[in-house]
Amino acid sequence: MSVTDELLRNAEQYARSFTKGDLPLPPARHIAILACMDARLNVYGLLGLEEGDAHVIRNAGGIVTQDELRSLAISQRLLGTREIVLIHHTDCGMLTFSDDEFRASILAETGVKPTWAPEAFTDLDADVRQNIGRIQAETAIPYRDAVRGFVYDVATGTLREVR
Amino acid sequence: MSVTDELLRNAEQYARSFTKGDLPLPPARHIAILACMDARLNVYGLLGLEEGDAHVIRNAGGIVTQDELRSLAISQRLLGTREIVLIHHTDCGMLTFSDDEFRASILAETGVKPTWAPEAFTDLDADVRQNIGRIQAETAIPYRDAVRGFVYDVATGTLREVR
Repeated sequence: MSVTDELLRNAEQYARSFTKGDLPLPPARHIAILACMDARLNVYGLLGLEEGDAHVIRNAGGIVTQDELRSLAISQRLLGTREIVLIHHTDCGMLTFSDDEFRASILAETGVKPTWAPEAFTDLDADVRQNIGRIQAETAIPYRDAVRGFVYDVATGTLREVR
Repeated sequence: MSVTDELLRNAEQYARSFTKGDLPLPPARHIAILACMDARLNVYGLLGLEEGDAHVIRNAGGIVTQDELRSLAISQRLLGTREIVLIHHTDCGMLTFSDDEFRASILAETGVKPTWAPEAFTDLDADVRQNIGRIQAETAIPYRDAVRGFVYDVATGTLREVR
């Protein structure tokens, strides 16, 4: 049995005890969270989110690329969110390689170099700050006053704000 | 008090009862989930995921753009995932507008038209299929055999596979 099939069994169980079928489309708490995809970072658990509370956007690193600007613009313009929380974390895979070496390894194996930057980084706090900067430079996102960045510590479960 | 500050209080509580500080970086179940950012879609709860199990990638719609190809390539090449699950859902915000009208509204308000496609769609199943196609066309993603797509029903809590 594949892992996907195992997860589908869990989904059947979730449906059997499901009681939240009448929640509205816009997030109740008017906030969007942008976090790394890391398996150890349970955004709902960490922030105490319930179904219906917040948009959750995730990718490798918790980076702001064009696609996150798209998601945040839709979140604010169509669905009423007003605050943004960015979360990077300790022991991140993005700290373990360089963009040049990752792209070169793909070129070597496939004969094609990806058009995208892998977005590796070397300093967690500095990368949180520059990603906040990317949001603040985007005129398609109307509300850019309440954007705060954090580093989650996967060893202690704590969240530290980047100033 | 801002919503962000309220969520930080929840994070303090999470840290106090945290017991999972020794999990490894690679996801234990070797799987990446790509789902819509919708607040009602609790990916950990729905799929029965625990901290450490799976990469979770999310954006407006659960769309495969260049940034999701980046995240999936990193997930498979550096962190050992082998299966991919795509999740769209009923009552999605992406069904409520057209790309042309969203980009025109931003142009009208800011004087600048975004360079990105908003990625609205009109048919959930068809959009899941074409997003699977985007993954299958990406040579930088090594494992493209086990990619399956689903539609989550926000009214019933059930997950239906798109064939």
